[in-house]
Amino acid sequence: MQERIEHDSIGALPVPVDAYYGVQTLRAKQNFYITGKQLHPDLIVSLVQVKKAAAMTNYETGELNKEVADAIIAACNDVISGKYHDQFIVDPIQGGAGTSSNMNANEVVANIAIEKLGGIKGDYSIVHPNDHVNMSQSTNDVYPTAGKITALKLTQKLLFQMERLGEALKQKSIEFDNIIKVGRTQLQDAVPMRLGQAFNAYRSAIDRDTLRLKKTQNELCIVNMGGTAIGTAINANPEYLKRIPVNLKKTTSFNMVLAADLIDATQNLDAFVSVSGALKAAAVTLSKMANDFRLLSSGPKTGFAEINLPPKQNGSSIMPGKINPVIPEVVSQVAFNVIGNDLTITMAAEAGQLELNAFEPVLFYNLFESIETLTNGISTFIDNCITGITANEDRCEELLEHSIVTVTALCPYIGYKEASDIAKESILSGKLVSQIVREKGLLSQEELETILDPSLMTEPMEEQQIS
Amino acid sequence: MQERIEHDSIGALPVPVDAYYGVQTLRAKQNFYITGKQLHPDLIVSLVQVKKAAAMTNYETGELNKEVADAIIAACNDVISGKYHDQFIVDPIQGGAGTSSNMNANEVVANIAIEKLGGIKGDYSIVHPNDHVNMSQSTNDVYPTAGKITALKLTQKLLFQMERLGEALKQKSIEFDNIIKVGRTQLQDAVPMRLGQAFNAYRSAIDRDTLRLKKTQNELCIVNMGGTAIGTAINANPEYLKRIPVNLKKTTSFNMVLAADLIDATQNLDAFVSVSGALKAAAVTLSKMANDFRLLSSGPKTGFAEINLPPKQNGSSIMPGKINPVIPEVVSQVAFNVIGNDLTITMAAEAGQLELNAFEPVLFYNLFESIETLTNGISTFIDNCITGITANEDRCEELLEHSIVTVTALCPYIGYKEASDIAKESILSGKLVSQIVREKGLLSQEELETILDPSLMTEPMEEQQIS
Amino acid sequence: MQERIEHDSIGALPVPVDAYYGVQTLRAKQNFYITGKQLHPDLIVSLVQVKKAAAMTNYETGELNKEVADAIIAACNDVISGKYHDQFIVDPIQGGAGTSSNMNANEVVANIAIEKLGGIKGDYSIVHPNDHVNMSQSTNDVYPTAGKITALKLTQKLLFQMERLGEALKQKSIEFDNIIKVGRTQLQDAVPMRLGQAFNAYRSAIDRDTLRLKKTQNELCIVNMGGTAIGTAINANPEYLKRIPVNLKKTTSFNMVLAADLIDATQNLDAFVSVSGALKAAAVTLSKMANDFRLLSSGPKTGFAEINLPPKQNGSSIMPGKINPVIPEVVSQVAFNVIGNDLTITMAAEAGQLELNAFEPVLFYNLFESIETLTNGISTFIDNCITGITANEDRCEELLEHSIVTVTALCPYIGYKEASDIAKESILSGKLVSQIVREKGLLSQEELETILDPSLMTEPMEEQQIS
Amino acid sequence: MQERIEHDSIGALPVPVDAYYGVQTLRAKQNFYITGKQLHPDLIVSLVQVKKAAAMTNYETGELNKEVADAIIAACNDVISGKYHDQFIVDPIQGGAGTSSNMNANEVVANIAIEKLGGIKGDYSIVHPNDHVNMSQSTNDVYPTAGKITALKLTQKLLFQMERLGEALKQKSIEFDNIIKVGRTQLQDAVPMRLGQAFNAYRSAIDRDTLRLKKTQNELCIVNMGGTAIGTAINANPEYLKRIPVNLKKTTSFNMVLAADLIDATQNLDAFVSVSGALKAAAVTLSKMANDFRLLSSGPKTGFAEINLPPKQNGSSIMPGKINPVIPEVVSQVAFNVIGNDLTITMAAEAGQLELNAFEPVLFYNLFESIETLTNGISTFIDNCITGITANEDRCEELLEHSIVTVTALCPYIGYKEASDIAKESILSGKLVSQIVREKGLLSQEELETILDPSLMTEPMEEQQIS
Repeated sequence: MQERIEHDSIGALPVPVDAYYGVQTLRAKQNFYITGKQLHPDLIVSLVQVKKAAAMTNYETGELNKEVADAIIAACNDVISGKYHDQFIVDPIQGGAGTSSNMNANEVVANIAIEKLGGIKGDYSIVHPNDHVNMSQSTNDVYPTAGKITALKLTQKLLFQMERLGEALKQKSIEFDNIIKVGRTQLQDAVPMRLGQAFNAYRSAIDRDTLRLKKTQNELCIVNMGGTAIGTAINANPEYLKRIPVNLKKTTSFNMVLAADLIDATQNLDAFVSVSGALKAAAVTLSKMANDFRLLSSGPKTGFAEINLPPKQNGSSIMPGKINPVIPEVVSQVAFNVIGNDLTITMAAEAGQLELNAFEPVLFYNLFESIETLTNGISTFIDNCITGITANEDRCEELLEHSIVTVTALCPYIGYKEASDIAKESILSGKLVSQIVREKGLLSQEELETILDPSLMTEPMEEQQIS
Repeated sequence: MQERIEHDSIGALPVPVDAYYGVQTLRAKQNFYITGKQLHPDLIVSLVQVKKAAAMTNYETGELNKEVADAIIAACNDVISGKYHDQFIVDPIQGGAGTSSNMNANEVVANIAIEKLGGIKGDYSIVHPNDHVNMSQSTNDVYPTAGKITALKLTQKLLFQMERLGEALKQKSIEFDNIIKVGRTQLQDAVPMRLGQAFNAYRSAIDRDTLRLKKTQNELCIVNMGGTAIGTAINANPEYLKRIPVNLKKTTSFNMVLAADLIDATQNLDAFVSVSGALKAAAVTLSKMANDFRLLSSGPKTGFAEINLPPKQNGSSIMPGKINPVIPEVVSQVAFNVIGNDLTITMAAEAGQLELNAFEPVLFYNLFESIETLTNGISTFIDNCITGITANEDRCEELLEHSIVTVTALCPYIGYKEASDIAKESILSGKLVSQIVREKGLLSQEELETILDPSLMTEPMEEQQIS
Repeated sequence: MQERIEHDSIGALPVPVDAYYGVQTLRAKQNFYITGKQLHPDLIVSLVQVKKAAAMTNYETGELNKEVADAIIAACNDVISGKYHDQFIVDPIQGGAGTSSNMNANEVVANIAIEKLGGIKGDYSIVHPNDHVNMSQSTNDVYPTAGKITALKLTQKLLFQMERLGEALKQKSIEFDNIIKVGRTQLQDAVPMRLGQAFNAYRSAIDRDTLRLKKTQNELCIVNMGGTAIGTAINANPEYLKRIPVNLKKTTSFNMVLAADLIDATQNLDAFVSVSGALKAAAVTLSKMANDFRLLSSGPKTGFAEINLPPKQNGSSIMPGKINPVIPEVVSQVAFNVIGNDLTITMAAEAGQLELNAFEPVLFYNLFESIETLTNGISTFIDNCITGITANEDRCEELLEHSIVTVTALCPYIGYKEASDIAKESILSGKLVSQIVREKGLLSQEELETILDPSLMTEPMEEQQIS
Repeated sequence: MQERIEHDSIGALPVPVDAYYGVQTLRAKQNFYITGKQLHPDLIVSLVQVKKAAAMTNYETGELNKEVADAIIAACNDVISGKYHDQFIVDPIQGGAGTSSNMNANEVVANIAIEKLGGIKGDYSIVHPNDHVNMSQSTNDVYPTAGKITALKLTQKLLFQMERLGEALKQKSIEFDNIIKVGRTQLQDAVPMRLGQAFNAYRSAIDRDTLRLKKTQNELCIVNMGGTAIGTAINANPEYLKRIPVNLKKTTSFNMVLAADLIDATQNLDAFVSVSGALKAAAVTLSKMANDFRLLSSGPKTGFAEINLPPKQNGSSIMPGKINPVIPEVVSQVAFNVIGNDLTITMAAEAGQLELNAFEPVLFYNLFESIETLTNGISTFIDNCITGITANEDRCEELLEHSIVTVTALCPYIGYKEASDIAKESILSGKLVSQIVREKGLLSQEELETILDPSLMTEPMEEQQIS
């Protein structure tokens, strides 16, 4: 392999001659072999969208001449289009607060720009990674900004799936609205409800999670560009600070704004903690719902069996005919992972010291994974599970009939104590609640029919006038 | 000890004759000896405020006669005033989704009311814990509602302290606004900043946490009263549902509203997860700030020593003269506890099954502790630490002068590479940056004086015109 | 209230004249109002057992004269006997690495000793809290040592309950060994098993947790006494280091040994992380078991209903006759709390800096709570739940008969594919598996009776010879 | 693309004609697109090592004929050699308790074996994925066993790095053993120590973590092979159970043994919780050490600057000459990730229900990542940081001299109170401690020289006889 020699303050290093990255990227590659994975492609694009916006702004403020600015912008466009992703070789988990990712971007953009201007890779006198591509910037404003843009992009996809999930649940709640069944608290038979109500409750919770997550997006739009090293904006022109958000909006289409306090915005990562907190809350809802589906579809013969999940694959390598709730299971696993990632994110945020938090790389690694696996998990949840759920109406009815869950409705008429005795007797003797009441002569047949009608118990209603 | 015999569906049990609680409370006491502690006093009051609002409503809807309603309301007033807190004997961590806490309240209120009506304790034919005090209610709507009211009360105190903290930090940021010092990233000397800016950044972060927490309060105002057992409102009158929030507002002074979906509101605890998430985010900010204070005050002789924390106690039982950053240390510990509590809260919320989450007691136990210890931690942080912080102005100046942090400002004029060489030389030789630049003849003395003025580096500024 | 004036390096402060604590305790009280609770009584005793051992050792090495040593030892005995617990007024969550707790002990012991020698409280010329009571010690060795002793004491009680739990589960496994039932994987009907096997599996898991926890006790016996401030043993006599473990063993009855590396032992809290990890593992087992009990007892009419938990209290304030799995519920809550506490402990341990970890107080607070609530939770689990569990043998048999879980046993004879078809047909048609096989003429009646005998499926067995 | 049609109980599906996987793998691929990643290569090999051991055993017990057994074993050898890793296409996070991974292995092995026997892929009459490759097995014993084998393999590499780390720290402790410096507690100057002692303490902690992790390896060697579906060994021959561990040992070289209670071993994942707990404990130690390195190397001009980390890359894209502690930073990030993963692992383990835990896939995903990133993180920690650390001996000496940390040594001679006054005076006046003592005439010059010699303070020593 042919090589060129590049220098940095540490010394010289041979770089593959075809490489668009340079010496600093290479050092990072050697220093950080942690996950063996690459930067998230959306992060690569976001980094370069920031570079592009900075170049546009530096040209506008007169700091960068037109030729170099145009070359940088064109180079950025190439990277954004996906052409040079293989040149981003640093590990996503890296020391140095993202410097390696930023320098990887600076070097790749510089070398592409150099070639566009007729130079050869490595001749940084034409376009310099630091002086030109990174002009008016620092890793400490570029990297968190790119992280926020990436999170915004990924969350859009997640929000799309969450809204789709809400809609799918709503459809099911309509479909199942006439099916009366036993409601259960603490896994014990409680009072009647409609299956549609259960699905509507899932929908309500998901819609709330969606709203909560949406609200956190505003926090992601507030960036510290122009704050440079520590938020004091050293080496950044006041005009640059004014124009950079406008250009960021052009390159990303998000409504980015500058933080009122750039120093705070450089050292605190609470916006990510907030987003991850909303993801965690959604994960909790999802895992609970997934567990409910497993419970309600337990069986086929010896469980609750009130609903059927669509069979998606053989459930077992040894047990013939077994169909398992594989999709809800994967949803819960995604949830557990999101909750664990939230802890890593929290610890990374807590570990910031003085003017910077150097632990963003691991935070991003976990945050992006949380958003994407939630997106994918919800997508399969909808398409491979929820839309195909069917109800076992007969089973629901049969269980309801043989249960004692209607007894609660008697309390206003005969009191808690008497109702308790009837409940106890019903369980022991197997007699239906209605029969016992009738035998005891506590209520007339007519009264009983109204009071013990389960369908009337699923909504608030006036107490019956009984004589 | 004299006893009376009470019965429930399990059987009979002797209850101390003086006790206002009854058989169900006693069973709970025997079943749950976990923490050995009592219910939070604010939770006791909140439970009974709910009872009072329910009695008012049941009277309005005609379900409860005036005599019994008045007695119950009077009994509630007694408990709210603090007279009977010793009658609440159940452990805060209990099985049964809070039934024991609710029944403890029902029994105590019933027996006080019975006495008010001239009866003797235990004669539930006069006022019955379930039929009268718990009328139109279920543990499943009462207990989470009381938990939300308690959280609202406690959070008010926390928000007061957080706002006070923001103000105290603001005062310090003004006081220290003229002190130039070294800003540090990754614990390495970076670029100049003003000490006031550092404190202002803390303020900005805290203000954001305050706002975030405030926003979650709305979620706490949405309750499932009237949903009764599972949210279907069984045994609750439609009129009751309409009037109960009005009366809750009267008894608690919070703007309580009913959830649009009572079934969802009965089974999902995400509002608490959301509040705890905001507490966790604040804890992260606080712990980072506390750690910064420990760093900045490290010394007295061999550390950063840029600020002094007020000495609050002898630091050591063996090392004379040692003063330690004890207040920031306790703040970090509170933060760690809040973060751990958030996990317990998350797991409790995730564990809900079908129509109910039975794990609220441990959730409340942790949530209330988080809010209160944060409140107390911040209070001591302000009064025993922050307001007494002083700056070592001379030290700040001396460190700044001997550092190379001004070198960054040279980049726009001489380029990153040349600046790097100067930095390296300065560190090796001990020569000041300005001296090296002068010796190399790179900039005129006049230019140098402007470009290397640290105070000009702490705000965005126009690049100097240099010829 | 009468007061005496005491001085420390911060200044003077009035102390209640009756108080055995002194100025340093009082400052701590003012600095740290966090939980509003007191030190754990076992920690108080442990601290003073350390003081006593130190006094014995200092007398043996000749550093302390007999009169003062005897007075200190006698004072320690008084505290150990429980007489002065009300004099320990510092908050368990405190800054300063436990200095306040240590000084509280030093001051109380000093003042008791002073009185024993005929002096009046506060006259530290007779017995000095630092020079005499704290002789050869530092908070940094005393406090973690006392924490370990406390954890050892508390864990003994926990281990007793865990062994009792293993025994209770074993009894049930014997009692239920003849009950054949459906085994379920992923909540779906799987293959037959005996109920006794299920309980035996719980026992096996608990026994393993017990063993794992026991192994961690050795880590708690290794202490850093004599390391004083940072483990270099400054101000500690070599002879003191040799003798202190012997005397610690006398005062505590635990086999305490000195760490080989006292500097490491002073700054790292991994022994506590290890213990908490074992507690967490046990909590996971317990919560899973508790959840299983809720599943297996779900019903009474519409759930699995294979076992009955003993009814311990009315399950509902609104639903008559409802009995809930309250004990398993509280066990899961304890588990969630232990898991959250483990996180706090982990973060506290991670936050150590250089020669000390200042975050032990919050670590101890959480660790002691974890051990104690686990102890209490398991105790109620055994006595109020497990020993009273009964099996619904008829229900188990009926569910088994109507299920298709025997179909797996056919695979070795007719292949997975054919068995799958039969399973599918059985579910669709409701016909028994045996009937379908018979109808298809795949196996003789005799073969079928052996192959499809569920009781033979619960242990490894030779394949049947079929012609 | 040419396709073949395969059937399972769900129906028919076209499979690429070249694919060695089959219909069940394909369904899994469609059901679970979560991480977009592949199974860990070591897990693939481990799964197939299990398959091979099973085939060997089934041949020995006479269940599998020689021809098919040999073909399966040969096919396994091909996969183990790495030839068919691209045929493992299922997502590592999947529902179904690992069924998809197991079936992917079964299908790939079957089709390779079919080809070896002259058949064409998909003709499962020759070698059947379930009946032959999966014979005597279930996902529920194969998958956790393969997970344990994988964890054992990965941990071997980790242990190698941990031992290397201990050795590297030991070397540094020897190298730095003569450098006296200030020891710090709570970031405040405390008492003198040797830099070598600090590194030795790190070594002691790491060695303990290594030992702790090693001990957990025994837990990983206990497997549930032969337990099949739920641990009752249905369809497994008693002889199979006896021989399978022997063959597992042959295929993996680990000392695998069967669990005494296969039912317990099938449903409980506590062995993994235990391993992850040990990893977490090591992560805590590492993160604390990494943070210490950042503190001790803080500077270059305004921090502690007692040690130098080897410069590994430019520290900043904007600040020339800045070198950051990038390696310790990445180590802390790895630690945060491991701690977050431990939470996911804990939640997955807790979520098991009845006879199986279906959440192993996410557990493995996190566990393997924890082990590998720790391995990689430690490797770079050693080679890119620790071995290159140098000490600033002059700086250590200078800081020590100007500090007051020797004052503690005066206590045994002049008492805590007097020593406190001297400390205070020294800090205020800037006079050296020795000078003040001399001026006060408290000790002779000779006494002073011995008592205040810092090098004598770093080990236990006899009190000086002073007249």
